[in-house]
Amino acid sequence: MTLPRRSPGKIYLPQGFSFSAACAGIKASGRLDLGLVEAAPRTTAAAVFTKNRVVAAPVEIGRAALAATKGRVRAVIVNSGNANCATGNHAYRSCQRICGATGQLLGLPSEEVFPSSTGIIGVPLPTEKILPTLATLVSERGTTRKHLDQFVRAIMTTDKRPKLASVRFRSGKETITVLGVAKGSGMIHPQLATMLVYLFADAVATPADLKRLLRGTCEQTFNCISVDGDTSTNDTVLLLASGQSGGRLNDGSRKQFADALGEVCQSLAEQIVSDGEGVQHVIRLSVEQASSREEALRVARAVAHSLLVKTAWAGADPNWGRILAAVGASGVAIKPDTVNIFIGSQLVCRNGASCPFAERKAHRHLAKPVSDVRIILQRGHANTKFLTTDLTADYVRINADYST
Amino acid sequence: MTLPRRSPGKIYLPQGFSFSAACAGIKASGRLDLGLVEAAPRTTAAAVFTKNRVVAAPVEIGRAALAATKGRVRAVIVNSGNANCATGNHAYRSCQRICGATGQLLGLPSEEVFPSSTGIIGVPLPTEKILPTLATLVSERGTTRKHLDQFVRAIMTTDKRPKLASVRFRSGKETITVLGVAKGSGMIHPQLATMLVYLFADAVATPADLKRLLRGTCEQTFNCISVDGDTSTNDTVLLLASGQSGGRLNDGSRKQFADALGEVCQSLAEQIVSDGEGVQHVIRLSVEQASSREEALRVARAVAHSLLVKTAWAGADPNWGRILAAVGASGVAIKPDTVNIFIGSQLVCRNGASCPFAERKAHRHLAKPVSDVRIILQRGHANTKFLTTDLTADYVRINADYST
Repeated sequence: MTLPRRSPGKIYLPQGFSFSAACAGIKASGRLDLGLVEAAPRTTAAAVFTKNRVVAAPVEIGRAALAATKGRVRAVIVNSGNANCATGNHAYRSCQRICGATGQLLGLPSEEVFPSSTGIIGVPLPTEKILPTLATLVSERGTTRKHLDQFVRAIMTTDKRPKLASVRFRSGKETITVLGVAKGSGMIHPQLATMLVYLFADAVATPADLKRLLRGTCEQTFNCISVDGDTSTNDTVLLLASGQSGGRLNDGSRKQFADALGEVCQSLAEQIVSDGEGVQHVIRLSVEQASSREEALRVARAVAHSLLVKTAWAGADPNWGRILAAVGASGVAIKPDTVNIFIGSQLVCRNGASCPFAERKAHRHLAKPVSDVRIILQRGHANTKFLTTDLTADYVRINADYST
Repeated sequence: MTLPRRSPGKIYLPQGFSFSAACAGIKASGRLDLGLVEAAPRTTAAAVFTKNRVVAAPVEIGRAALAATKGRVRAVIVNSGNANCATGNHAYRSCQRICGATGQLLGLPSEEVFPSSTGIIGVPLPTEKILPTLATLVSERGTTRKHLDQFVRAIMTTDKRPKLASVRFRSGKETITVLGVAKGSGMIHPQLATMLVYLFADAVATPADLKRLLRGTCEQTFNCISVDGDTSTNDTVLLLASGQSGGRLNDGSRKQFADALGEVCQSLAEQIVSDGEGVQHVIRLSVEQASSREEALRVARAVAHSLLVKTAWAGADPNWGRILAAVGASGVAIKPDTVNIFIGSQLVCRNGASCPFAERKAHRHLAKPVSDVRIILQRGHANTKFLTTDLTADYVRINADYST
């Protein structure tokens, strides 16, 4: 399924980044499972990470490295098929050895190699498979679309489709490009960042600039999606700016850059949701007239997590009573008799009570790949958009397979 | 599936209650959908209700009636197949007319008739089908086991099995009986009460006594179960004491009564969970060494609501990494390296990291109808037990059927 809006469109490659991928044999399938990005000298960086208290070794090491280098990253090394999480000291040692070896091959200090992992938790990372693969990975890097596509495939796990988005804009004499790639289709309920997302830009920007821009953008995009309500231990969004375009972030271009970043992140967020495990229907949830944005988000999350709502959506069932019950159980002190609910363009619940509507039309709307549900609280002026999905028997099948 | 412990066993009927059931035609299936209990004069009552902000008309009317009568109830009228919720004034008028008509037939004021409804939200209650059925309902009431069984069937919706439990004990010269009946198999995530539960005792007790006992018992039983994390708009637990045994609650018998009530409620809670929609595996979750009971409950609920944990359980997959990730996302400030996890008798995660264990044995344990998962936080001295279930493709099928 693809969302009609913000589909990836043309992909532009920013200057200053090369990509590579290899099969290290971490995935039993023999697919690509190791990816590398090399960034030009003086590349600046900012990142946001999972809020889960259980964090994988690469998240801790990446966070510490960013602090130590004051926002400098020259390479990104990612493996899929193993989260490198919850295996004690082994996880840290593995991650450090991989960063060290990658750095050595590229002539970089270990702290400038940013690590990520995604896959099963609690299984030791097979370092002995990864280390011998690094030389090939480094030697085969390149700057073409083909190299990029291989990298994106190397970070996929249960994803059915690669996820890319880019925006290019002119700022004075320079052309600045923002490119984003992402993986993620289960454990999608980011609390700050989401899954693995890498954002590459060729603007000139300080790490502090990048950090501020990234936080604001994540809040509006990756923090407003949910597939299954589970927050991963490895969520990472990394933004790199190579400076190779020569375009600086200034009063004129900062807004353009923020918009470009927002558009790329929103597209990736939508691609992640529509490729969610077992997803048949994407729901664009809009919670309106809340007292605060936090309140609107709380209501949106309660609805997006209700199994009864999500299973009703799987059946394209315009069962607004379940939505209303989920709003009531959200913990927000709503007054039921001020709640209005729309499915598509139709009002289906007026002031907390049933009202006449064309059920077949509402059913047909929910049967579409993407549909709209609006919840109006009549409590204030805060709104939020939230992207979520139905819950299908396929989701259960994908996740109930006895895997360990 | 039945839980090995606390299976219903012999059912004792307390003195002072008669039961009745009828088909009013609310359920399309033509099954029993209207139930009545008549209680002896001077019966005392206490109730706890859903914490959902959206509450059904019978919950509001029942709560107000209990306040007006200061804890006196002489009859209970329940329909299944329709929640009588979110249909505006119609819901209140319907409920009042039904209580009024039932009272008239029994020679009671309307406020002494306690109403409940369970079923679909947002569809007007077909009062015109219920009112003409009341005369038969009243005339056919009786005190036998058969009358009781019919009543229990009349309150069922998607339940596969009726749920009953009772305990009888001697207090001085008197024999006191506590009987409980319940319905509920979806929308099971009580926040104070759960679903419809009626508890009948023939002790002599004040409403204040009953209220205190009921609150404490619910906190330990119905508030420690979850099937799907959805909180109903109609949850009600009603406790009635007819006084007909002559046994008074005094220093000696109060503890016995509390224990009997606790045992009946625990059995009903376990019956509700094991009859949960699509449930194949019941998990007895134990969260230990938390800083407080609230913290233990928060961790238990986070694990019990994680779709990835629940689907792993459906596959009897000893994937403790998903459990650890859910603990980390619970919002409790746990330290991952103090978390131990047991599946059955085996330690599968020691200090937040993998440790050697017999995977097949853990798989076999989780493949049993009822299994044990222990999470030890090493933060303090508070513990909680929590009963939950797997999430199967059958749950999705049951709830994705296009129903409205």
